[in-house]
Amino acid sequence: MVVVMKPDATRADVEAIVEKVEAAGGQAFVSRGVHRVIIGLVGDIEEYAALNLQAMAGVSRVTQISSGFKLVSREQHQERSVVQVGSVSIGPDTVTLIAGPCAVETPEQTMESARMAQRAGAKLLRGGAFKPRTSPYAFQGLGRRGLEILADVRAETGLPIVTEVVGAQDVTMVAEYADVLQVGTRNMQNFPLLQAVGTAGKPVLLKRGMNATIEEWLMAAEYIAKCGNLDIILCERGIRTFETATRNTLDISAVPVVQRLSHLPVIVDPSHSGGRRDLVLPLTRAAIVAGADGVIVDVHPRPEEALCDGPQALVAEDLHQLGRAIEDLTAYMGRTTVDRWHRRAG
Amino acid sequence: MVVVMKPDATRADVEAIVEKVEAAGGQAFVSRGVHRVIIGLVGDIEEYAALNLQAMAGVSRVTQISSGFKLVSREQHQERSVVQVGSVSIGPDTVTLIAGPCAVETPEQTMESARMAQRAGAKLLRGGAFKPRTSPYAFQGLGRRGLEILADVRAETGLPIVTEVVGAQDVTMVAEYADVLQVGTRNMQNFPLLQAVGTAGKPVLLKRGMNATIEEWLMAAEYIAKCGNLDIILCERGIRTFETATRNTLDISAVPVVQRLSHLPVIVDPSHSGGRRDLVLPLTRAAIVAGADGVIVDVHPRPEEALCDGPQALVAEDLHQLGRAIEDLTAYMGRTTVDRWHRRAG
Amino acid sequence: MVVVMKPDATRADVEAIVEKVEAAGGQAFVSRGVHRVIIGLVGDIEEYAALNLQAMAGVSRVTQISSGFKLVSREQHQERSVVQVGSVSIGPDTVTLIAGPCAVETPEQTMESARMAQRAGAKLLRGGAFKPRTSPYAFQGLGRRGLEILADVRAETGLPIVTEVVGAQDVTMVAEYADVLQVGTRNMQNFPLLQAVGTAGKPVLLKRGMNATIEEWLMAAEYIAKCGNLDIILCERGIRTFETATRNTLDISAVPVVQRLSHLPVIVDPSHSGGRRDLVLPLTRAAIVAGADGVIVDVHPRPEEALCDGPQALVAEDLHQLGRAIEDLTAYMGRTTVDRWHRRAG
Amino acid sequence: MVVVMKPDATRADVEAIVEKVEAAGGQAFVSRGVHRVIIGLVGDIEEYAALNLQAMAGVSRVTQISSGFKLVSREQHQERSVVQVGSVSIGPDTVTLIAGPCAVETPEQTMESARMAQRAGAKLLRGGAFKPRTSPYAFQGLGRRGLEILADVRAETGLPIVTEVVGAQDVTMVAEYADVLQVGTRNMQNFPLLQAVGTAGKPVLLKRGMNATIEEWLMAAEYIAKCGNLDIILCERGIRTFETATRNTLDISAVPVVQRLSHLPVIVDPSHSGGRRDLVLPLTRAAIVAGADGVIVDVHPRPEEALCDGPQALVAEDLHQLGRAIEDLTAYMGRTTVDRWHRRAG
Repeated sequence: MVVVMKPDATRADVEAIVEKVEAAGGQAFVSRGVHRVIIGLVGDIEEYAALNLQAMAGVSRVTQISSGFKLVSREQHQERSVVQVGSVSIGPDTVTLIAGPCAVETPEQTMESARMAQRAGAKLLRGGAFKPRTSPYAFQGLGRRGLEILADVRAETGLPIVTEVVGAQDVTMVAEYADVLQVGTRNMQNFPLLQAVGTAGKPVLLKRGMNATIEEWLMAAEYIAKCGNLDIILCERGIRTFETATRNTLDISAVPVVQRLSHLPVIVDPSHSGGRRDLVLPLTRAAIVAGADGVIVDVHPRPEEALCDGPQALVAEDLHQLGRAIEDLTAYMGRTTVDRWHRRAG
Repeated sequence: MVVVMKPDATRADVEAIVEKVEAAGGQAFVSRGVHRVIIGLVGDIEEYAALNLQAMAGVSRVTQISSGFKLVSREQHQERSVVQVGSVSIGPDTVTLIAGPCAVETPEQTMESARMAQRAGAKLLRGGAFKPRTSPYAFQGLGRRGLEILADVRAETGLPIVTEVVGAQDVTMVAEYADVLQVGTRNMQNFPLLQAVGTAGKPVLLKRGMNATIEEWLMAAEYIAKCGNLDIILCERGIRTFETATRNTLDISAVPVVQRLSHLPVIVDPSHSGGRRDLVLPLTRAAIVAGADGVIVDVHPRPEEALCDGPQALVAEDLHQLGRAIEDLTAYMGRTTVDRWHRRAG
Repeated sequence: MVVVMKPDATRADVEAIVEKVEAAGGQAFVSRGVHRVIIGLVGDIEEYAALNLQAMAGVSRVTQISSGFKLVSREQHQERSVVQVGSVSIGPDTVTLIAGPCAVETPEQTMESARMAQRAGAKLLRGGAFKPRTSPYAFQGLGRRGLEILADVRAETGLPIVTEVVGAQDVTMVAEYADVLQVGTRNMQNFPLLQAVGTAGKPVLLKRGMNATIEEWLMAAEYIAKCGNLDIILCERGIRTFETATRNTLDISAVPVVQRLSHLPVIVDPSHSGGRRDLVLPLTRAAIVAGADGVIVDVHPRPEEALCDGPQALVAEDLHQLGRAIEDLTAYMGRTTVDRWHRRAG
Repeated sequence: MVVVMKPDATRADVEAIVEKVEAAGGQAFVSRGVHRVIIGLVGDIEEYAALNLQAMAGVSRVTQISSGFKLVSREQHQERSVVQVGSVSIGPDTVTLIAGPCAVETPEQTMESARMAQRAGAKLLRGGAFKPRTSPYAFQGLGRRGLEILADVRAETGLPIVTEVVGAQDVTMVAEYADVLQVGTRNMQNFPLLQAVGTAGKPVLLKRGMNATIEEWLMAAEYIAKCGNLDIILCERGIRTFETATRNTLDISAVPVVQRLSHLPVIVDPSHSGGRRDLVLPLTRAAIVAGADGVIVDVHPRPEEALCDGPQALVAEDLHQLGRAIEDLTAYMGRTTVDRWHRRAG
């Protein structure tokens, strides 16, 4: 941390800071300039936060220099991590396609979607049984019945399930069915939920809050990690800006930026960020060559009947092209879309 | 709702829409122009949402015309509402000051803060026992012990308590102690929590999400109202923008805008929006003359020792000036800061 | 400036920085911590910018500590400035109302608007002869003919004129007519224009860019000041955010924030920020008690016929109420709306 | 356009609108619903804008349905355009690399940069002689001397020149040297400049304003087109958001979105959007597979000595990899990087 003093700060003001820091077991280095004094602090930033130096006399600004996340940080863990879901490895050597319906509606629609996903090369099935919706009058998902449908479809297709959990009280129940627990964009800072998925014993797919900085997103991941769960897949899904042509603005730069800051895998959701079917293919291609470790897309056998986010769902004819693009660009990036089990077998 | 067709939409495309709408019991009015056709829909917008017209052939855009909120809407309920907390009326005739420490730390600090608040004219005591913090390493609040401290302070000062609840599973417990349940900015779209406070039998203070549009905020209030609880106080607390000089940007226009759209009372949090002590007084003044029904501010006997948000807390000497400004400008607005009980007594 | 080294920076990396800084005549103070080294630099920040330290080996981040503006900075000039326009003083002791039509359309409309403005207490007349419009098909203003109309109206009413100049090449011509040269939001970083108004010998009203940080806005003022013109009135007019209920989001906090950073007067434009007539009165009240040194509002005798921004223009019946609110709240703030000439006379 | 009436609008209010529209030669279609009336207007939107229907009695909202741009619109011109610069074709069949130093500093640095660019496959040389800088104390460019250096380098390398013009008054002079006139992000709504480049007889590279919606960007292009110049290359260069890890947020979705709305070519600037050298390669790859018609990047022989934006400039060793990626992904997209002259020759 760096403490910048006001131009009119006194020598006593500076000394008071140094004493407070040293009393807390830290070290303070004073740089005296023509116009002002800067004090560099060395030690544990959380302790310094508690010192509340900002409130002391003569202080102009306190600037944090190190990041606040540790367990998920690449500084602490140079090698990029792999999250294993059954036979599927999500990490630096693979590009994983996750696909499925935005919401589970019926057994038939879910099974058809899963077959579509599988034909396109998806290794995991996404599908929402609990849907957080802006309006209380919108379809809220089938709940446990939706989880049972997903489990049936998994039994038949072999695809592990990624599904959202919307409250800490539901984590145990959802974890009985899910292979990966998804935390949605509106819940990125639902801290009880983060702590609950941190102890649920299942990998977590953590979507970026649509209003969250990258640092806050990694801090949210740190909450999960601090509870003992490092199997976290980060998912960039667009941020809120003034632009209205798209639902949100996909922050494609976040992929390489996060991969430099954190060892966790990062995937991209091209369906929710753009909110338009015609953008899914170009954004998927962009995601892969930006280095994403996977993509998660909405599919639906009949989007015109979808109860949720129909306008962005891919249909069967889109999927062939999508699967082909993923194959080609994954190879271009020196990665593979084939999972470990197949590779071993091959 | 209005359906705008593409320039190349066929007559059959238009007819298909009209049929679908009429089959659902609605009405569709076709306006044929030189370049394109517009179809006006009359009826229930939720039904139309389920029709998924966006996905039909020839459709360029579907635009919602009416708002999606009803119970909290002023169209449905012309007169502005009053939320009653004990003897305190929050509504169009009063300006209510809510003050207290950001976090409950000790019995002494809470009692001192409450006394400060009361001397400044506060009618309600705010104080956090559960603190949602960006970092898992930051102070998370005292939990139930904090609630007990608040209850003790209430017993001694007579000030009703506003305190935050951070998860649906805690609502019953927090409601045992709280007079008003606060839903924080990060939880504005935590739908299980909204539903839980909707049935808890206590008034709710609903902070605007720092990334939420006014429409989304009112939809969040609608969730609570739909569960049977219309005792909702809306709280503008700043939105996230590119400006970095302040913690967030207080959207002062939101006060009159929301009051035209909704009958619910709207208060302002000048402490969290600016994040700076020196802004609390000017922003409080601005809030009152913009028409706010109250303000909620952080106070602390010794901000330099605060475990949370010290830089924005007011100290004793600030509060006299704040209380005076609130008195003066409340009178200017033709309102009163005196609660009902006192008025009756007076 | 502060240079933060990477955790793996070598001793040689650190020494290279120190040498480069000292060779440039500056001073570098090294703080060695457990995890990383911080180097505090003392001296002229522009020189350091040219050193391009960010590009040197081992550097993680270079953070600027002092602000880049000087001439407009309050650190350099503690007392708040007054800008004098004829007999009108804009500064800390007064609240000045500037009013007039968004665009000059006809002599009659301009004169009627000026009379309306004057009756409401306006001391300066605003009116656009050159209109920067998003669409090339929208009304672009009357040009020089508009300036002549403004000059005629000034001759008759005695109101000095504030009018916009949209390009450096027009400054000399517009300055022949204008008493205050306005630089609009879209031109806040039109640097040739800033330099031209900096030497035009007339006060400048500099609107904040709708996308500009406060620091960038003050840097734009610094451009004007550096050309020798310190008669600058800053005008907050709303920033662009994700909220769509208002045209822009009035950043009311900017008023006190800028007044702490700069000695220049700051006024508020409640018409363009909200874009709605019904918001002008509450936002004007908010501006004055937030400490604004004035407000600038759109008026029009018949807004339904306005060629530009009709929906936000005040009409005659609004103005009485507005003038009254300005009087009352100006007095409350311990200021006056009366100009120097009248005060001397009174 | 669609006029939505208030719930309490009278029959007379509706008739007044219909009459006004018909008097102006337009057509109005009335849709009466249970709660409110919607009026669809058919005809020319500019005329309707002048009618100022928003201000009429009973009107709740006026919504624009068609876009305001025409000449640059794809609705009017289905086939995507090619902009020809010498032998270089920028359009749907090619991916064009434009590279060079952010600022022209010396003949040597410019020549070295040009050689670097050329070796990497650049077909056009970028370089700034006039630099719009946030601070008046920062390096502002060499002016005409810089243009002369660029012309000399062109004579030696054969690379056509893209260079920025910052004011309308400079357009004629810059056009004497430039092959493509660049309008920078801060000048996207500098309307006199847009009009001046619209008649300068040279292709224009129009950067998106960092705060501009896609619609505003296309309206800015429409200004140029309306002056008779349709040789416009659009350049996405990042928008301003709350994220601070990158200089701006590259809006990668803008590439396909704009290509659906407009026939003009769209290129991407991965250097200025991210502001970090390590992001240039992944963002370039993303741009190409999102469908961009080219990329424009900063290079510098010695970024640590650059007078402008050194941290984002590529060096020689980066460029080989960049050129290779562009070749590979251009081929993947079924396009070519070879210009027409070479193709003819080949």
